[in-house]
Formats: sequence, structure tokens, C-alpha cells
Amino acid sequence: MSGFWMESLLAENPEAGWNLAVKLSRMGVKATQPSDEVRGRLRAIYAEDADSLIASSHVVAVNFQTVAAANNYWR
Amino acid sequence: MSGFWMESLLAENPEAGWNLAVKLSRMGVKATQPSDEVRGRLRAIYAEDADSLIASSHVVAVNFQTVAAANNYWR
Amino acid sequence: MSGFWMESLLAENPEAGWNLAVKLSRMGVKATQPSDEVRGRLRAIYAEDADSLIASSHVVAVNFQTVAAANNYWR
Amino acid sequence: MSGFWMESLLAENPEAGWNLAVKLSRMGVKATQPSDEVRGRLRAIYAEDADSLIASSHVVAVNFQTVAAANNYWR
Amino acid sequence: MSGFWMESLLAENPEAGWNLAVKLSRMGVKATQPSDEVRGRLRAIYAEDADSLIASSHVVAVNFQTVAAANNYWR
Amino acid sequence: MSGFWMESLLAENPEAGWNLAVKLSRMGVKATQPSDEVRGRLRAIYAEDADSLIASSHVVAVNFQTVAAANNYWR
Repeated sequence: MSGFWMESLLAENPEAGWNLAVKLSRMGVKATQPSDEVRGRLRAIYAEDADSLIASSHVVAVNFQTVAAANNYWR
Repeated sequence: MSGFWMESLLAENPEAGWNLAVKLSRMGVKATQPSDEVRGRLRAIYAEDADSLIASSHVVAVNFQTVAAANNYWR
Repeated sequence: MSGFWMESLLAENPEAGWNLAVKLSRMGVKATQPSDEVRGRLRAIYAEDADSLIASSHVVAVNFQTVAAANNYWR
Repeated sequence: MSGFWMESLLAENPEAGWNLAVKLSRMGVKATQPSDEVRGRLRAIYAEDADSLIASSHVVAVNFQTVAAANNYWR
Repeated sequence: MSGFWMESLLAENPEAGWNLAVKLSRMGVKATQPSDEVRGRLRAIYAEDADSLIASSHVVAVNFQTVAAANNYWR
Repeated sequence: MSGFWMESLLAENPEAGWNLAVKLSRMGVKATQPSDEVRGRLRAIYAEDADSLIASSHVVAVNFQTVAAANNYWR
């Protein structure tokens, strides 16, 4: 509708907020590598690499801090 | 019940909050590698690698910041 | 106009804030490597490297925390 | 007494808080590698590796942020 | 005048704050390697290394969080 | 006097706070490697390694966030 891929940092509940954090982490990769084909190819490799997976989880954690703060931690 | 794996960021005490942070860190890995089989195989390897373990502890620390803030540090 | 590359941390909406975070991440690289030619050459390489892309996404996430806080999370 | 390894994030003074942060960092490793024997063996190796030591110090720093905030920075 | 290399965390505008964050990042390196000659030699190498540049940008991002908060985000 | 190596997170000015952050970063290494001799030997090596120096600067930046917040950014 609006043409934005991110309308808001507000999420209905913690799990929706988590999903947004995962999406932000992927958009962070896309900012440097816009090709869906290349990202798909690389993902097949790093999804089998423990250190890459831990690093990915780290990025999600940082983005989740932002989303959780934006939602006042769903308190 | 609700179908959510994360109901809330609220935890009864610091240790329950810590356990949630550990769970979030694992869900961050699962977001990229959904296969239980692959994650189990990789875990056997990185659980013997000091740098991977330190990196894992780092991710837990970041998620624990979020959970602790959400719980107003159990003050 | 003003000669600044960053006028303000205020952004109209989350997506504009995200774009500013991406810009800050690039300016962080430029601080050490001012040559457009060298950065362009390196980018072609790391855009094909999964770990570099994850690390880039991490930097964007940190800068986005700053921009989002500056904008009071667009609440 | 309570069966918890972490009773509280409150610490009497900055140094006690720092010690708690070190403990949290170790518990983060233990979450992935519960074997005392394996962790002891790995520690002997990474305690001689500069990059591992810097990474460990990083994790302590992140956990100390949490503990210090929980204690209102002992102001 | 005062003999301090950092007088204050206050900066006139976001860009001056960014420059301070870059300076802090360099002072962090200098804390471990005080020799201008060695740092200059190393910089020539890592300025051509994509992963080092991303890591440098990460440090600037962390320091900029501090400076931006100190300045109340120039709101 | 008190037997503590860290009396307080309060520092008279930003530069004293920075020095405390450097000290905390070193104490984080010492938590894992208590031997002065080993740390001295390793430091001679990593002080010549660009990536180690950047990682060290990163740890100082994280600790400085804590110290600066504790001092209300010396505002």
C-alpha cells in the first residue's frame, strides 16, 4: 500500500516483534547485496556454518533490542 | 495454548529471564537454520570450539539485556 | 546547502531512519578508507561473502538503534 | 538455599557487580557446553589466545552494562 | 589548553558528534598500541581489508551511540 | 585502601571515564587470564595485529558506554 517495507516499529506482541527483528536483519544484508539470487546462494552455505549462524543470531538480538524498546517491552 | 513460542518478555526472576535469553539466542539461530537435525549436528561441533562458545555467550548477553530491561531488572 | 553529510538524526519514518543507519554504516567505513575506488573494489568482494554481509547487517543494526532512539521510535 | 545460581542482579558495589558479569559470561558458555571437563580443557587453550581473550572481555563488558544499569550505576 | 584530548562529549551537531566517535575509536586502538608509526603501518594494511573496515565501522557505531545519547540526540 | 580495584563508576571528567573504560577492558581479559606474564607476552603480539586492535577498541567502546551513562555523560 504505502510502498514501505517497514511501516512501523510497533508490533502486536513479542513474537511479532521478533519476526520484525529477523526481517530487519535480512534487510541489513540486502542493503549490501541486493540480488535475491546471490543471497539465496550464500544462505545455503552459511546455514550450515555454526559461526555464521551464531553471528546471525547476534544481529537478530541487536535488532530485537530496538523493536522491544519501541514497543515498551509489551508491558 | 496460544501457539506462540514467546508469550511475553516478563520473567518471574533473573534466572527465568536468563533462560529466556538463552532461548531467544537459539531461536535466532533457528530463524536461519530451521532444521533440528542440522542444528543438532552443528552444535556438537561448536560446543567443542572455544571461540564459538564465547560468541554464543555474547548473544545470550545481548538478549539478556533486553529481557532484563523488560523486567525493570527485577528491582 | 549546509555542507554537512548528516544534517540531523531525525527521520520522517522508520524506513527513512533505516536508510540513514545504512548511510552511517558506510560513512564508518569511509572514515578509515576514504577512497571511493578502493571501497567500490572491496564491496564487490565482500558482497559475495556471507560473513561479511552478516557483519555489515550488524553495523546497520547498531546504527539503527541510535537513529530509532533519536526519533523516539516514531511512536 | 533457593536453588538459583543467580539470586538477583543487585550487587553491593561496582566490583561485586563486575564479578557477577564475569559469572554471567561463564554461564553463557555453560548454556551451550554444560560439561565442566570440556570447558576446563578449552579454557586452557583460549586463555593463551589473544583474540579469544579480547572476545571474552567483550562479553563481560556487555553483561556489565546490564548489571550496572540494574544497580542504577551505584550512584 | 587543558591537556585533555577529550574535553567533553558534547558536540555542536550530529556530524561533529560523529567525528568525535571516530576519534574515540582511534583512541581505543591507541590505548593498546601507542606507537604512531606502528598504527600508521597497520592502517595501510587494514584499510584494504573489507572485514577490518566493517569492524572499524562497527566500533564507530558503538561510540556514536554514546556521543548521541550524551547530546540527547541533538533534538 | 579499600582493597577494591574499582571503587566507583564515577569519574571526574570524560577522559578519566575513558581511562576507566580501558581499565575495565583489561580487567575483562584478566578475568580469564590472570597471569601478568602471559598477558604481557600476548599483548606484544596482538598490539601488532590490526584486527585485534580494532577488537580491543570495540571492548573499550562498550565499557565507555557504561561509564558515560553512570556519569550522566558529564552533562
